[in-house]
Amino acid sequence: MTLSEKSLLSTNNFSPTERILHSEIGEYVKQMFVPTLGKSIETQIDEIVNDFSEEFLITKKANTNIEIDLIIKNFGESKIPLEPTDFESYFQYLGDNVVSHSIHTSSPQFIGHMTSALPSFVRPIAKLMTAMNQNAVKIETAKALSFYEREALAMMHRQIYNLSDNFYNLHIQNNQSTLGILTSGGTTANITALWCARNKSLGAKNEFLGVEKEGLTAALNFYGYKGAVVIGSELMHFSFDKAADLMGISTQNLIRVAVDSNNRVNIQALRQAVADCRQKNLHIIAIVGIAGTTDSGSVDPLEDIAEIAQENNIHFHVDAAWGGPVIFSRKHQQKLAGIEKADSVTIDGHKQLYLPMGIGMVFFRDPHLASSIEKHASYTMRKGSFDLGKRALEGSRPGMALFLHAALKLIGLKGYEFLIDEGIRKTQYMAARISVMPEFELLADPDTNLLIYRYIPEEFRGIIAEKKLIEKDNQIINNFNECLQKMQRQIGRTFISRTTKTTISLDKQFPVIAMRAVIANPLTTEEDIDAVLNDQIQIASEISISHVSKMNN
Amino acid sequence: MTLSEKSLLSTNNFSPTERILHSEIGEYVKQMFVPTLGKSIETQIDEIVNDFSEEFLITKKANTNIEIDLIIKNFGESKIPLEPTDFESYFQYLGDNVVSHSIHTSSPQFIGHMTSALPSFVRPIAKLMTAMNQNAVKIETAKALSFYEREALAMMHRQIYNLSDNFYNLHIQNNQSTLGILTSGGTTANITALWCARNKSLGAKNEFLGVEKEGLTAALNFYGYKGAVVIGSELMHFSFDKAADLMGISTQNLIRVAVDSNNRVNIQALRQAVADCRQKNLHIIAIVGIAGTTDSGSVDPLEDIAEIAQENNIHFHVDAAWGGPVIFSRKHQQKLAGIEKADSVTIDGHKQLYLPMGIGMVFFRDPHLASSIEKHASYTMRKGSFDLGKRALEGSRPGMALFLHAALKLIGLKGYEFLIDEGIRKTQYMAARISVMPEFELLADPDTNLLIYRYIPEEFRGIIAEKKLIEKDNQIINNFNECLQKMQRQIGRTFISRTTKTTISLDKQFPVIAMRAVIANPLTTEEDIDAVLNDQIQIASEISISHVSKMNN
Repeated sequence: MTLSEKSLLSTNNFSPTERILHSEIGEYVKQMFVPTLGKSIETQIDEIVNDFSEEFLITKKANTNIEIDLIIKNFGESKIPLEPTDFESYFQYLGDNVVSHSIHTSSPQFIGHMTSALPSFVRPIAKLMTAMNQNAVKIETAKALSFYEREALAMMHRQIYNLSDNFYNLHIQNNQSTLGILTSGGTTANITALWCARNKSLGAKNEFLGVEKEGLTAALNFYGYKGAVVIGSELMHFSFDKAADLMGISTQNLIRVAVDSNNRVNIQALRQAVADCRQKNLHIIAIVGIAGTTDSGSVDPLEDIAEIAQENNIHFHVDAAWGGPVIFSRKHQQKLAGIEKADSVTIDGHKQLYLPMGIGMVFFRDPHLASSIEKHASYTMRKGSFDLGKRALEGSRPGMALFLHAALKLIGLKGYEFLIDEGIRKTQYMAARISVMPEFELLADPDTNLLIYRYIPEEFRGIIAEKKLIEKDNQIINNFNECLQKMQRQIGRTFISRTTKTTISLDKQFPVIAMRAVIANPLTTEEDIDAVLNDQIQIASEISISHVSKMNN
Repeated sequence: MTLSEKSLLSTNNFSPTERILHSEIGEYVKQMFVPTLGKSIETQIDEIVNDFSEEFLITKKANTNIEIDLIIKNFGESKIPLEPTDFESYFQYLGDNVVSHSIHTSSPQFIGHMTSALPSFVRPIAKLMTAMNQNAVKIETAKALSFYEREALAMMHRQIYNLSDNFYNLHIQNNQSTLGILTSGGTTANITALWCARNKSLGAKNEFLGVEKEGLTAALNFYGYKGAVVIGSELMHFSFDKAADLMGISTQNLIRVAVDSNNRVNIQALRQAVADCRQKNLHIIAIVGIAGTTDSGSVDPLEDIAEIAQENNIHFHVDAAWGGPVIFSRKHQQKLAGIEKADSVTIDGHKQLYLPMGIGMVFFRDPHLASSIEKHASYTMRKGSFDLGKRALEGSRPGMALFLHAALKLIGLKGYEFLIDEGIRKTQYMAARISVMPEFELLADPDTNLLIYRYIPEEFRGIIAEKKLIEKDNQIINNFNECLQKMQRQIGRTFISRTTKTTISLDKQFPVIAMRAVIANPLTTEEDIDAVLNDQIQIASEISISHVSKMNN
């Protein structure tokens, strides 16, 4: 019995098709909005959705092996239907074509991306959020929720900065203060942080009205700079490219400093980059430290970066979109030491806070920093109001605070500590396994719960062991790993992602295609990890070296 | 029986508190993620949430009359609890403190903002979206959903641009083409449109690498401009201030052209503004036309703006965040004539497409325009892939396409036409009522389904009728209306928002505090409209003129 056949068993007692035929479309559509009338339809759709979800969530396969070309054929319609489609056929269609061929991000053997299983309470909360449909942009559409959101953000702020009771009493519910901003994700959080940093550091002074009102060129002129830059490691997330582009400072002025062999920014090189910019008379908007690179989970030496930023009076931003929740772990929080010195910190809720997709956050050490981006409108966001939209990149936005607040309370510090510790523990297990398996090469010691490694075809294992890899052979190994990752993804039993790293052999730098494991799902066991590695070994046995040797890369 | 008492009746068969005491926190938390074990908790929370929702959705009052100061007292906690809070007490707390004091955005007498009732099917879909937890940023975390999203966007694109079958066959599922981008809201949609327009118009040429890589100052230098501007009416949404600030062109260079008495941009003045900028050697990134101002729902003469943009070879952006869905109405779509000539169009899903909060869209006439903002990363978003995140401001984002696609199919063209027609019809009813009621003054003829008007205290009705209003009296009427709107909001039976407009009397311009009605809820009846107006009259009778005369404004 397929997903959709099963679900439709429960729906044969409602038949909207008939209803459309027997009444006006207007009446039919209006009924959808009536809570009492809509209730029976809602209950029945709810049952279908529960069936979909149940089957979806227990499936261990990462995804179906349907080819992209086949999927594409199903989605070629460009006309909105004239009349309403009946619920029955739409949900059948949805089950067959969308739910069936979606990625089982919650599968314990889908350990390749930062999206994993969620606690069950988020699903009913999603429905509640949609039923309440608050718009967090302003008090008039989100009364209690505005203060509830501020409280949740304050709890996270305290976890990062741990300031005094006095500080929090003063700022949590003070409409002049912004401890944090809820965003749609880490990208908008990072952009918001840099936007604040730029506007503050190039603000109004004497006759100059500030970069906001007079623009970037005038600001650089007024302050006597030749340009503006943001500095961080070469592993900065691509949201910083977006920020540099969007803010008009140019992606070339996003200065990417080299990392060491464990993917942490080279502090010597960072210090040099700051000095170079000063010497070239370039304004440094911010120095970025990464707490958990997207590539490999590595954490920059935040204390050292904080010191450089402080010495030079530069805004220090920490992109902890991934790694931020490591602060919950007494065992591992030391890795993030220095984060409390950051002027701003990005943390994603939909990553290691285990919240549904669509929630990021940015926190500020100075509760008044965000006033540098404040905007008003005559119909709302009035000065002195509690409207959250006054200081934010986004405007209307949903009550995602429900997920954050509930999770902080229902999981608690110790619960999050367990989740973080487990992820790191299992990653160390995987690293240890890989180290002793001849089929694989570990490419870096894991800082947190990301792991990069690669498969080494048998004929190259000796060369790797002797560290005598030459470029031509590396290219074949690269092709092999790319092919392996794509086949694994296509077969769909298990999943590991891939990235490109640099390795050094015989004093030469080579680009390396690496397998990238992300171990965050609390349901992933050691057996699951073994299964994923064994799946790769099995698929590798079907790849011919002569085939990949001819691949262009 | 209160909301929370009622809901808790169904929860006495699970007692997580005990479970915490009897087992390790780790095991307890892990169980939350197990679909089968989590199921019973989920089912019970689901019941509570259903009870919350049901009561919430049938409440006619706009909100409770609790004072903000009292709410604030409930949200002063800054510490995350050490141990997990039990579900029972958390949901009791949530019901008592958050759900109870949230705004009934779906109430038929809450007719003051752009958030209203939703069709019932979105609630179970919210749960499905969260269960599937796809991340639309890339194929590897959103397989079928990526193509399904593209299809939904293509359907909207066709509704706006109505290009040929050939065009859609070529572009719907072509990874080089971007017909539209799903965003978290209209603000990010507007910013994205202007970002594309800026990058395209100041792109790479000869030795110049383009504004993206070299920055705004270098771009202006290379192209020989003194600055860059965006031009639109003075009623442009405040997201354009954000865009102008963020992009470094300055909010002063967001050129706001005067509107006529019906709040539509003055075409003569717009033409002049374009000429002035050219003469001053300022680069015009885009001209913005508004299809439904946030203030009053008015629609700019888009045909005329399109002509000016075409003549001058300037990007033409239409902010149809609110008014876009008027294209569904055969009766009213003529108001939007010219939108099909726009280079980019913003439409909000969470406004008149009746989708839950958190979905905006931007559409492009040229499917290759968005390549001007394309970014890549080594671990994903590779060139040639179908990863939707390559061309977007945001990164990770939820499968909101589920709401859009489902609503287009389940409501259909005729269903949306009904919703739009009804909103406008009822607004005209309200305008007609106000015109004949001595208590009110209509401040503009409604273009769509927003209405601005004000209450006139008895002693000023003669002066208004004779058009002899002087500034001092206007100020008292302003104070009166501000007071009235605030009291109405606080009492919470009904709701109307307020804005500030300009009126002319005796050849002088006065700022006018206006009541702003938004009639989009399909459940709002003529009786509801009368009730809201009568509520205002009743509250007005309790306001003393001598009190408001002394108010500072």
